Amino acid sequence: MRKIGLKEVEDIALGASLLGAGGGGDPYYGKLMAIGAIKERGPVDLIDPEEVPDDAVIMPIAMMGAPTVLCEKGTGGNEYKVIYDIVSQYMGRKVYAVMPMEAGGVNSMLPIAAAARLGLPMVDCDGMGRAFPELQMVTFTIGGVSATPMALTDEKGNSAIFNTITNKWTEELARAVTMSCGGSVTVSLYIMDGATMKAFGVKNIVTRSEMLGQAIRNVKNHPDMTPEAAFLYASEGYGIFKGKIADVLRETNGAFNLGRVVLDGIGDWRGQRAEVCFQNENLAVTVNGEIRATVPDLICMVDTETFIPVTTEALKYGKRVMVVGLKCYEMWRSERGLELVCPRYFGVDTDYIPIETRVKEGLGNV
Amino acid sequence: MRKIGLKEVEDIALGASLLGAGGGGDPYYGKLMAIGAIKERGPVDLIDPEEVPDDAVIMPIAMMGAPTVLCEKGTGGNEYKVIYDIVSQYMGRKVYAVMPMEAGGVNSMLPIAAAARLGLPMVDCDGMGRAFPELQMVTFTIGGVSATPMALTDEKGNSAIFNTITNKWTEELARAVTMSCGGSVTVSLYIMDGATMKAFGVKNIVTRSEMLGQAIRNVKNHPDMTPEAAFLYASEGYGIFKGKIADVLRETNGAFNLGRVVLDGIGDWRGQRAEVCFQNENLAVTVNGEIRATVPDLICMVDTETFIPVTTEALKYGKRVMVVGLKCYEMWRSERGLELVCPRYFGVDTDYIPIETRVKEGLGNV
Repeated sequence: MRKIGLKEVEDIALGASLLGAGGGGDPYYGKLMAIGAIKERGPVDLIDPEEVPDDAVIMPIAMMGAPTVLCEKGTGGNEYKVIYDIVSQYMGRKVYAVMPMEAGGVNSMLPIAAAARLGLPMVDCDGMGRAFPELQMVTFTIGGVSATPMALTDEKGNSAIFNTITNKWTEELARAVTMSCGGSVTVSLYIMDGATMKAFGVKNIVTRSEMLGQAIRNVKNHPDMTPEAAFLYASEGYGIFKGKIADVLRETNGAFNLGRVVLDGIGDWRGQRAEVCFQNENLAVTVNGEIRATVPDLICMVDTETFIPVTTEALKYGKRVMVVGLKCYEMWRSERGLELVCPRYFGVDTDYIPIETRVKEGLGNV
Repeated sequence: MRKIGLKEVEDIALGASLLGAGGGGDPYYGKLMAIGAIKERGPVDLIDPEEVPDDAVIMPIAMMGAPTVLCEKGTGGNEYKVIYDIVSQYMGRKVYAVMPMEAGGVNSMLPIAAAARLGLPMVDCDGMGRAFPELQMVTFTIGGVSATPMALTDEKGNSAIFNTITNKWTEELARAVTMSCGGSVTVSLYIMDGATMKAFGVKNIVTRSEMLGQAIRNVKNHPDMTPEAAFLYASEGYGIFKGKIADVLRETNGAFNLGRVVLDGIGDWRGQRAEVCFQNENLAVTVNGEIRATVPDLICMVDTETFIPVTTEALKYGKRVMVVGLKCYEMWRSERGLELVCPRYFGVDTDYIPIETRVKEGLGNV
């Protein structure tokens, strides 16, 4: 157990927004909520998964919907209490701790805000090790865990609990309510006991985010490496492309941020062209029409000078970015993992080939 | 307290489908479910509202969605048990009785089926005294009662409980889930105590439906009246038009059956034309372009020979119908009642004028 205060929040937000792979929302907005809660209620206890009793009730906290909507619509502040009350009443037991469900600018931060406001510890574990756009896309689904009972509330005070026959149905019904509530809501799902969390969770992801954040902050201070080399070393990332944003096409459809971005190469990549498509998160990157990486591996864009991650909302014409690929959590590469998050599920017409294989097949680092 | 068996079900279904005002679903389908349940489990106890203790938990049962969808999609049979379990768990108390929420072919019958299958009595009371298309349109809303907690389940086994800040929000969120579940679901809402039911409910509506059904069955046996006169006398109805259906325009939009029907006059009405528009229920009738009746008064179409009500789904070219207007329950004519169900809410551009006034202003009986 250790304390998460304001400094830790800064690093976690930065690192998690890299793991957000373009999605997961604006880390600035998420950070404000965590910082506001910690300033009011004090630091949060981050507990190691192994410290959690097997029968403890763990309440994941997340926002559902289009992150662009959340940034405009905001939250009301009372959502955590509403969710806590619903979950406690429904389970008939006290909640032991909160937990994030995904890494990303917003969903790594809301659980910290919730933990601070509810006076509960947060577990150093999540269900993705990155961000994904649909709620059944968590390692707990691979483990056969039900998303329901799922609690949902909006900033106005409307709430719902769902019980569904499959996690795909949870997505369907909760998504419909999310849209009716204006496009973003606060949810708790995959409410589980400690034993389940330990068996299927992506452990120590908060600590990993924090270390990534620290590394990004310090890329320019490395004694022996260029900032870029230091960044790729610390993130264990594969450099895929460097370019200037030439075009961004967007639509907000079915509560998702959809679109693609076109990059004109710079530096060694001058004269070449890359394209990244996204559904909240980046789905695939092609260079000169050839696929270089796809989901479930992480495709991230970072500023070429500061190495700060650029979310899909922040993409704009003229910005210079490096496209970086990171290996996804091993469980996503299993057959059951790929059933949930293979490229074709997202409309990307290719088999999944691990990023390290795609890189070996003819593409060095940037 | 008295028993509702197969014979009573026949009459209630027939009478309630008149009160359905064109909506409320196919009485044949509703009846089959009530009959099936009674054959398996025995007759249902119908209790007078005054017999219900003030603190008893009353669980209304209804289907939500487009009745045309229900007839095709059907129910699974286990919905009542799912709803009962959710409601009991949520309220932390046993349910005392079920209750219908509206009159109509389906929603007058499902509570009978539920009562039989759950072994609970049914209260002789509802929240409309007719059928309406949206869930906030109940006398309990006039009484300030919340629609939530509202329980919802589909035939597949998905379920949800809603808690909302207004009844309009319940409609919004539950409608979204209803559509995601395929267009029709089983719900319990306005779960209330006995005192509330007695204060705001439309009492003895089941008995009234039954008496209407008996009267329709017996119109040809009256010693002194023509069948038509007997029908209008028993129903306290205003004859508005008689005609042959010349055209039916339909769309299923936002989970509602919308449309209008055009009638070419027959008998005394030859050469004249009437039009009835509907949103699940009939909303307004015009004769030669002049409005003759609007919601919340009941506009019903019945077969000119048998006086059996014709629901909006059963409208078809060439059928001969009489358009009959019935006064709505008094509470709907209050200011707060009209806020919920005035003609303009449904897109009918006129003030509400009670049917008896419209009739006096120049229109006799058929």
